[in-house]
Amino acid sequence: MSATRFTYLGPEGTFTEAALRTLPEAATRELVPMVSVPAALDAVRNGEAAAALVPIENSVEGGVTATLDELASGEPLMIYREVLLPIAFALLVRPGTALTDVKTVTGHPVAQPQVRNWLRRHLPEAVWESAASNADGARLVQEGRFDAAFAGAFAAATYGLEALVEDIHDAENAETRFVLVGRPARPAAPTGADKTSMVLWLRDDHPGALLELLQEFAVRGVNLMLIQSRPTGAGIGNYCFAVDAEGHVADRRMGEALMGLKRICPKVRFLGSYPRAGVAVADVRALRPGTTDSDFTAAADWLARCQDGRGA
Amino acid sequence: MSATRFTYLGPEGTFTEAALRTLPEAATRELVPMVSVPAALDAVRNGEAAAALVPIENSVEGGVTATLDELASGEPLMIYREVLLPIAFALLVRPGTALTDVKTVTGHPVAQPQVRNWLRRHLPEAVWESAASNADGARLVQEGRFDAAFAGAFAAATYGLEALVEDIHDAENAETRFVLVGRPARPAAPTGADKTSMVLWLRDDHPGALLELLQEFAVRGVNLMLIQSRPTGAGIGNYCFAVDAEGHVADRRMGEALMGLKRICPKVRFLGSYPRAGVAVADVRALRPGTTDSDFTAAADWLARCQDGRGA
Amino acid sequence: MSATRFTYLGPEGTFTEAALRTLPEAATRELVPMVSVPAALDAVRNGEAAAALVPIENSVEGGVTATLDELASGEPLMIYREVLLPIAFALLVRPGTALTDVKTVTGHPVAQPQVRNWLRRHLPEAVWESAASNADGARLVQEGRFDAAFAGAFAAATYGLEALVEDIHDAENAETRFVLVGRPARPAAPTGADKTSMVLWLRDDHPGALLELLQEFAVRGVNLMLIQSRPTGAGIGNYCFAVDAEGHVADRRMGEALMGLKRICPKVRFLGSYPRAGVAVADVRALRPGTTDSDFTAAADWLARCQDGRGA
Amino acid sequence: MSATRFTYLGPEGTFTEAALRTLPEAATRELVPMVSVPAALDAVRNGEAAAALVPIENSVEGGVTATLDELASGEPLMIYREVLLPIAFALLVRPGTALTDVKTVTGHPVAQPQVRNWLRRHLPEAVWESAASNADGARLVQEGRFDAAFAGAFAAATYGLEALVEDIHDAENAETRFVLVGRPARPAAPTGADKTSMVLWLRDDHPGALLELLQEFAVRGVNLMLIQSRPTGAGIGNYCFAVDAEGHVADRRMGEALMGLKRICPKVRFLGSYPRAGVAVADVRALRPGTTDSDFTAAADWLARCQDGRGA
Repeated sequence: MSATRFTYLGPEGTFTEAALRTLPEAATRELVPMVSVPAALDAVRNGEAAAALVPIENSVEGGVTATLDELASGEPLMIYREVLLPIAFALLVRPGTALTDVKTVTGHPVAQPQVRNWLRRHLPEAVWESAASNADGARLVQEGRFDAAFAGAFAAATYGLEALVEDIHDAENAETRFVLVGRPARPAAPTGADKTSMVLWLRDDHPGALLELLQEFAVRGVNLMLIQSRPTGAGIGNYCFAVDAEGHVADRRMGEALMGLKRICPKVRFLGSYPRAGVAVADVRALRPGTTDSDFTAAADWLARCQDGRGA
Repeated sequence: MSATRFTYLGPEGTFTEAALRTLPEAATRELVPMVSVPAALDAVRNGEAAAALVPIENSVEGGVTATLDELASGEPLMIYREVLLPIAFALLVRPGTALTDVKTVTGHPVAQPQVRNWLRRHLPEAVWESAASNADGARLVQEGRFDAAFAGAFAAATYGLEALVEDIHDAENAETRFVLVGRPARPAAPTGADKTSMVLWLRDDHPGALLELLQEFAVRGVNLMLIQSRPTGAGIGNYCFAVDAEGHVADRRMGEALMGLKRICPKVRFLGSYPRAGVAVADVRALRPGTTDSDFTAAADWLARCQDGRGA
Repeated sequence: MSATRFTYLGPEGTFTEAALRTLPEAATRELVPMVSVPAALDAVRNGEAAAALVPIENSVEGGVTATLDELASGEPLMIYREVLLPIAFALLVRPGTALTDVKTVTGHPVAQPQVRNWLRRHLPEAVWESAASNADGARLVQEGRFDAAFAGAFAAATYGLEALVEDIHDAENAETRFVLVGRPARPAAPTGADKTSMVLWLRDDHPGALLELLQEFAVRGVNLMLIQSRPTGAGIGNYCFAVDAEGHVADRRMGEALMGLKRICPKVRFLGSYPRAGVAVADVRALRPGTTDSDFTAAADWLARCQDGRGA
Repeated sequence: MSATRFTYLGPEGTFTEAALRTLPEAATRELVPMVSVPAALDAVRNGEAAAALVPIENSVEGGVTATLDELASGEPLMIYREVLLPIAFALLVRPGTALTDVKTVTGHPVAQPQVRNWLRRHLPEAVWESAASNADGARLVQEGRFDAAFAGAFAAATYGLEALVEDIHDAENAETRFVLVGRPARPAAPTGADKTSMVLWLRDDHPGALLELLQEFAVRGVNLMLIQSRPTGAGIGNYCFAVDAEGHVADRRMGEALMGLKRICPKVRFLGSYPRAGVAVADVRALRPGTTDSDFTAAADWLARCQDGRGA
């Protein structure tokens, strides 16, 4: 029964699973690892799962562009939550292994650059071989094919390993962003610290076409957080844009910007409004003067007075 | 009783009077010449007149900036009609005067450049002296102080003169624009070839402040017809902007643009929506795709579906 | 001989003459009043005068639109100086006349609104009749046709009158701006508080055409001081734009903006760079970061390094 | 000796290697597979390799965001060539294997969605298990751990396999883009079909900051091909932008746009100008009127005339 099942980018023991387990709504679900982002999302589209957690930005497990492309095409889906997870690896070994015993290490290829400096300092002689995922690396250590694997510390239990070293990461402040995706429904009410995601297609690609698109946001004082051009699949040089903007579809400024985009773009896909992870309402940037809901209401009242001849 | 009286920039026999007489609504009114544009408009503000006709663009009788400044300040007024009058002078003389008799000519100083070339060709020896208005010039000819006056042919009868030559004008296609101004009331319904006038004040005068203001129009596909910066009276360097835009306040794109301006400008004065003179509906420029009322309605429906989770 | 002669919008005794007399370069010239702005400027074009002083903004003597239109068409001219004159009238009477003797008053029709409130308070019974210019009004008082004329106090001597009351003006801070116009030559060196004037024609009149034009300024951080749309004479709805911008044609940001405009506009007319009247260098608004000449030079150096492969 | 060595995202048998082998300049080099994009690029920075080929867009081997992030930080690098490779997989098996023998398949996880539909139709019973790379999958088939691997057909020889089926791909027209990266040097001369890559940092993140950045391109008629926001590493919400634009740093419009960006951005990294892969000069989109090099030169000549008083 779909309502009881969430899928995620597997296998078990990945950062995606760890991110999913931070969500209260996941606590009572059956969590099912899938081989790829499209597979995880198709289970949602097919009704086999209620939602899927997939990486969408800055992932050490890949999948980011697959997620964007999947959200941009096929049956519409919507984002309901985002999860931020700091990027930090543990060195997982079979119980009893000392650091000096480690001659071979493994992990996802995307993880390797994150642990390169650490390896150079602590295991300069160790030989790296890539695994299909961080979790697969852990499994291969369990099977005895490698001495150690870089993976999330939470993967140790799953594979009967122990974390010899924790919190390994070359970049400071690095985080992966995941999103919880379901079928379209009414978005959650605004919290005051919200984000709206969408995909926009350009009418044509003259110089300034993208500029016109961004003016729809700027004129209403809507701040952009992310913009990614993605090929549309209609040949190189044809792009759509994945955009994250500050605010909620229920905010007047966001609604007017979305309607403006809808009018000028051949296609707009609304991907949902949801609470921003890791941002308190008090830390949300102040709105530009003239862009609050009450500014919109006051302007609408004024317009009605003009239209009625009751003074300007 | 005010409803029976229209004022205009006098004196009798001016182009303004001629323009006023082209309006059907003037046929049954008492038409009262006033010494200046502010005087004509104050009569409306005070309730002594129902409306005033005053020049607003490219006038050969002055008054244009006075009209703009008066509309921008004081008690609010609204424009209900515009009238275009081709600029063409007649050479008015006392009956019996031949062209060779004309040694001295007069007229409003602003008229002089319009007839200069004609004078050079046909009356190279004639001496010009300025009058306070074209009509005053005609009066001075009647009184025998000058041999001929440049004025509208319609002024001949008023002053017992005859038009020796007609259709004198140096520039081709030159027209004066006049507006009929009254106290605020509900604008006439859209005709399909309408114009909306307003005065806009800038929040502050950083590079790009005016650009932001114009973006409010451009984003909604509203075409500007006229923009004039005017000093606000708060010292040199402080400007407001008189703007004419294509469309009616009842059009969705115009309404949204006006609301946007209301939100970013410290002050907006709506001066009315009224039919464009001399432009048939069939000749109105096509709207930019995505800016018709039905585009706005469709976008609003789409937004409602997004907000309700009924698909993007 | 032209180099010794300056023309101005006459007749003698106007504010324009008073403005001209504030210029040191006028002290040694023959100052010749002309009947109209076009006549004053044609004398310059024909070589009969070295320069002409004409009103260009907020004049109480008219002529503003004539000046803009003349600068926009015909043989090119350039602005070399601007002069600001506060708008303040004197009540000129024949010597011996007391205020209680004044039953009839005269003046230019444009002056009337500036003195209306004063008249209401001090001469509520006086009858106004318009004159062709403020100076003409003074002449008519001299001739005995009126009891008093509103004109500049400086006109009293010319017409043998005396100023019974001075500093009459309804609006606070009102000023007229005049410009000294000559044939094209190298502009004066920048002073640090300069202004550049130009006329711009639009390629076509789609929504946003004006916006594109203003972007050329905004992108280079050039601040606009004045923008006036003017009919081009090619039929109603065809406009050019008179623009004043802060800065000098020798400033890098202004030069780049002008080149950008030259590329997108079918026609650009450069009207000169000249010192701003009434603004000390210390009071000039700070430039937007990144728009000084040294910012331009640094960016050009950086570009050369990129092009040479010497690092980005 | 570095000049003889090119690195690439390995292992051997990947699409990246296949792309590299299409380049004439690779024919005489030692081609060295590296475990990750950062490792491949560090070899260039360290002088161990003359250049590295890495995926930058739409890759089925991951690495895209790693490439963008590496180019944006650390020692400057430059792009000299791009290579497009259609995405098409072969099903690699040990010689003698028939399709009906295939019970287990492997490949890079990113490849799985590209072959999903094919699997469903032709091998609905086959079990998928991910490998660390497409090439690793081939190696695991060679070792007998799986029956078949999805990889490039070119990988068959390396691993002693044969391509049982070729040209498998779910999406039409899908291509991966790779770039050849070296240390900074003078870019190749313009070909008429060029592309310029850069990374831009925003001064601050107010609504419209990105708009200002894009205006620098639009005002000069420079067309954008790609824009990707990337976290700067200074905490969530801090972004830089990877941008590809049509044209060459030697083009006047591109040079002026780059200088404008350099002035408004706290940091700009020029990543090179290089020929566009797969685009003939004849197919390059026409420039917007007014943006050719000769338009720039003509405007500069005009400006010089204005500055010299030789007419506008």
